[in-house]
Amino acid sequence: MLIQSEFDIQFRLSYPTAMVALLHLHPSLEADLQSGNHLFVEQIQEAGSGQITGEPMLIPSTEYHDSFGNRCTRFIAPAGTIRLKASAVTLDDGLPDQIAADAQQAPVENLPSEVLQFLLPSRYCEVDRFGAISNDLFGWASPGWSKAAAIRDWVHNKVAFNYQTARPTKTAMDVYTERIGVCRDFQHLAITLTRCQNIPARYVTGYLGDINRPYSGAGDFSAWYEVFLDGKWMTMDARHNDSRHGRVLMATGRDAADVAITTSFGDAYLSHFYVDSFEVDESGKKLPIPGMPELAPA
Amino acid sequence: MLIQSEFDIQFRLSYPTAMVALLHLHPSLEADLQSGNHLFVEQIQEAGSGQITGEPMLIPSTEYHDSFGNRCTRFIAPAGTIRLKASAVTLDDGLPDQIAADAQQAPVENLPSEVLQFLLPSRYCEVDRFGAISNDLFGWASPGWSKAAAIRDWVHNKVAFNYQTARPTKTAMDVYTERIGVCRDFQHLAITLTRCQNIPARYVTGYLGDINRPYSGAGDFSAWYEVFLDGKWMTMDARHNDSRHGRVLMATGRDAADVAITTSFGDAYLSHFYVDSFEVDESGKKLPIPGMPELAPA
Amino acid sequence: MLIQSEFDIQFRLSYPTAMVALLHLHPSLEADLQSGNHLFVEQIQEAGSGQITGEPMLIPSTEYHDSFGNRCTRFIAPAGTIRLKASAVTLDDGLPDQIAADAQQAPVENLPSEVLQFLLPSRYCEVDRFGAISNDLFGWASPGWSKAAAIRDWVHNKVAFNYQTARPTKTAMDVYTERIGVCRDFQHLAITLTRCQNIPARYVTGYLGDINRPYSGAGDFSAWYEVFLDGKWMTMDARHNDSRHGRVLMATGRDAADVAITTSFGDAYLSHFYVDSFEVDESGKKLPIPGMPELAPA
Amino acid sequence: MLIQSEFDIQFRLSYPTAMVALLHLHPSLEADLQSGNHLFVEQIQEAGSGQITGEPMLIPSTEYHDSFGNRCTRFIAPAGTIRLKASAVTLDDGLPDQIAADAQQAPVENLPSEVLQFLLPSRYCEVDRFGAISNDLFGWASPGWSKAAAIRDWVHNKVAFNYQTARPTKTAMDVYTERIGVCRDFQHLAITLTRCQNIPARYVTGYLGDINRPYSGAGDFSAWYEVFLDGKWMTMDARHNDSRHGRVLMATGRDAADVAITTSFGDAYLSHFYVDSFEVDESGKKLPIPGMPELAPA
Repeated sequence: MLIQSEFDIQFRLSYPTAMVALLHLHPSLEADLQSGNHLFVEQIQEAGSGQITGEPMLIPSTEYHDSFGNRCTRFIAPAGTIRLKASAVTLDDGLPDQIAADAQQAPVENLPSEVLQFLLPSRYCEVDRFGAISNDLFGWASPGWSKAAAIRDWVHNKVAFNYQTARPTKTAMDVYTERIGVCRDFQHLAITLTRCQNIPARYVTGYLGDINRPYSGAGDFSAWYEVFLDGKWMTMDARHNDSRHGRVLMATGRDAADVAITTSFGDAYLSHFYVDSFEVDESGKKLPIPGMPELAPA
Repeated sequence: MLIQSEFDIQFRLSYPTAMVALLHLHPSLEADLQSGNHLFVEQIQEAGSGQITGEPMLIPSTEYHDSFGNRCTRFIAPAGTIRLKASAVTLDDGLPDQIAADAQQAPVENLPSEVLQFLLPSRYCEVDRFGAISNDLFGWASPGWSKAAAIRDWVHNKVAFNYQTARPTKTAMDVYTERIGVCRDFQHLAITLTRCQNIPARYVTGYLGDINRPYSGAGDFSAWYEVFLDGKWMTMDARHNDSRHGRVLMATGRDAADVAITTSFGDAYLSHFYVDSFEVDESGKKLPIPGMPELAPA
Repeated sequence: MLIQSEFDIQFRLSYPTAMVALLHLHPSLEADLQSGNHLFVEQIQEAGSGQITGEPMLIPSTEYHDSFGNRCTRFIAPAGTIRLKASAVTLDDGLPDQIAADAQQAPVENLPSEVLQFLLPSRYCEVDRFGAISNDLFGWASPGWSKAAAIRDWVHNKVAFNYQTARPTKTAMDVYTERIGVCRDFQHLAITLTRCQNIPARYVTGYLGDINRPYSGAGDFSAWYEVFLDGKWMTMDARHNDSRHGRVLMATGRDAADVAITTSFGDAYLSHFYVDSFEVDESGKKLPIPGMPELAPA
Repeated sequence: MLIQSEFDIQFRLSYPTAMVALLHLHPSLEADLQSGNHLFVEQIQEAGSGQITGEPMLIPSTEYHDSFGNRCTRFIAPAGTIRLKASAVTLDDGLPDQIAADAQQAPVENLPSEVLQFLLPSRYCEVDRFGAISNDLFGWASPGWSKAAAIRDWVHNKVAFNYQTARPTKTAMDVYTERIGVCRDFQHLAITLTRCQNIPARYVTGYLGDINRPYSGAGDFSAWYEVFLDGKWMTMDARHNDSRHGRVLMATGRDAADVAITTSFGDAYLSHFYVDSFEVDESGKKLPIPGMPELAPA
């Protein structure tokens, strides 16, 4: 299956501002990359009235890999309006998220050293405050997949989705008490409860389009998480709690603090936001999505 | 100057428990290492009454470097009493902590990529909650050393030291409101306020003995922090707020969550605690410390 | 000046639910009451489709005064849709909020006993966490009105208004860190900082229409606060920070937890919300408000 | 049964400081009062060395009842050392705390108006954050005594007592996550969980000596709580979780913020603390307590 993932995000800035973006596909997808994945960082030429007055100008940027292996892009956004834009096509195995009911949880002493950090508390995952709560709720569950899935199900069923309730300071504890949140909030709570049970868990950002399923609305970046079972990272999603097709990975980290899509070291106002991912055929033509309106938001 | 650093820490455990220790000297000290720095992980042979019944037995352990470059030791502590023990002698340049009143703060866009993570929020450093507070307090200060030192001084003078108030969940915000804490709490608040001003700041653990100064009490591990100015990490210490001699570095990380001296994945009760560092002469003899009682706690 | 205050609020309930409403004018306004102030608690007769099928039916209710002297109404809301509705006309002295730059702050020992409770911490006003912060910010200010006004001004200028950020658990500390909120949030932060300076402060709910000023949008209930100076309660408003005309008092308490407009002991969904207050002439005719659209939201 | 309750508490103050004390027995005990209950507020005459230089001098004080009906004493403590001291003998029915397994929980609509406030959130009892948690834990329990007792038992068994962990800002949420605390912390968590189940709960301070039970250590004031079942307030104690004899009531309120033993509006250092309560015979002689050391701490 071929999946095209793409976005066009614009910010308005009053002053030149340093920014970091984690907007490339994840390096682990390189072998499956068919085309694209070039990040355009552009300044839009516009008059004071907002009218476009010329071709976008390229803004110089540099790349680095962070300590989690994510591909990061740095640049100085000039005052005015900037556009971040990319499109990529990747080959996907067409399989849904794996369900591995017998996946084992390794004793901590047998975990690879590099995954140990995903047992620790992090900004939005207060593992140190959730020990007793997690044991009360899931101490009984059989180790491994059963326990990890029980946590995911619990979070999915106890927390309600609501875009209005997003806030940058919301932690797993806030989600646990308020029981309402967006993608990232679901995953933060699930990750925290999972780490308390000595199962490494990490936060993931990427695309999750309506692939092999009906249209569900305008696209967005998505967040899910991964648990370390059977010696490898396995996908979990406490928001959708469904074995989905066509996730396209962008970045992984301890929590959302590590893998913000964009970080600006100064004020930046989001002025345009288009994100989508969908199946394409060999010719690059988008396959129809059942239920999608003729004129989808774009 | 030669500095000997050493410790003997013991834990009692009811069950075999995976542990990670960050108890070696920092790899950056290798060139200055004169002797020692071998971590002994031992099981103490004792009768139920606590009486020693034989020589300690070595517990197998393995090493790895975490993503911050710290040297970490992993092992399974058996039920009973274990001892962690090491001693090392390092060559120190004999200079006090550098005071560099004209050290410059690089614009974020010029920072090396690997230090960017030390601007982000982390478990105990809620950068995302302190933006306005930090600007209210230090927005006026000249960038660079002046600003970093103003933050350090403020924390030092506004927070009182009190061993009784330590708790594992205490964050920079708790320190800011309670104004009382231990080493780590002072540094967490200072680190957070510093990051908000776009100066990278990282947490440090190590030894800080009474070197070139009068005896101040029984030894302990210490925590301080480093700020990134003039293209390098420079020592700051909001707890002591003094240019000290003879710090011996053990580990650096985003905050105390990254560099716990020991992490046990199960219950472990600290039953013995001796830590010290002091100047020695060429023959390895400890130099006298003014004011130290004849029988120092050991 | 005659002021008419009125509202029509509706809730949908799945089950019969006990409710308490603080929707009468404050007992202190009794002498100025010209007409109305009867609270209608009604069940709306409707078909499943929401179509009105008959006259509203009265729901029995009882009244009591809480420990703050507020007039409270209790009733059991039946399943379906209920309407709370009242209108009142009061005589107002036509004067703006008093500015009393020389109002004195009594030493705590001289405060009347019944106001001492307004120095204590309460649910949304963590006086016990703000002591040092308040002293840092306002310790320098001259006692009395100057200090109280400095606090009000600071909050007004440091916090931004945003309806989207309201949440029921938001405390003064959240407002202090997030710097964004609605009416109640501004007042909670100001109240907390004021109490820390040993000036009693209490939370107020009521109507604040566009009286003697241009139209500013659809009506709502408002919150402000009062400080105890010169032996009496004086109005402050950190949200508007302006000497306004025509406030109509409904209830006072330690914070919003004490004087919720409605409290339902079970789920209740707000389905209709109209609140307004405005000047009327002797004949009861609404005086024009400059800038008000012909068809105001009602 | 006759119970003598008494205390001698001393504070050192640098400046004259307004104080409020809730140190009388509760007004409801008046009929049972046999003798005493006079609060002495005294200044201790001492030289700079701390040596007593004369008889204590009486400090003038006044009394009032707060909105909960507690007897409060106000005074200005002069700089130096003050002593608060009282002793009282009350007649006790000799019965243990009532166990009323069939006590009913009234529907909210049938609760007396004056108890409704004990369903609301208060400073240390964040009812608004615990709704889902309380339902998860106790939604299943039969209403009334069963549910109230389940909550009390749960808190008792899940929280460990530790004097070192007391702090003035600790809320029910902190107790729920840290699972460690002192008397007041146990009761705050139990009160919060109970209110979430629509059972009114209030905080109580008083004496709880070793009456009809073995000696358990030096005396202290105690805190417990009351739940409103069968139309009256019934004693619960999540700290001791035991049907005890000889509680002597001092004050009731929404939580510890309302009924602090002493509140000082300025710094006051506790320099002496003796509290005790015990059974006496008709002649006023203290009855022996099994296991009490000859020279009990006094």
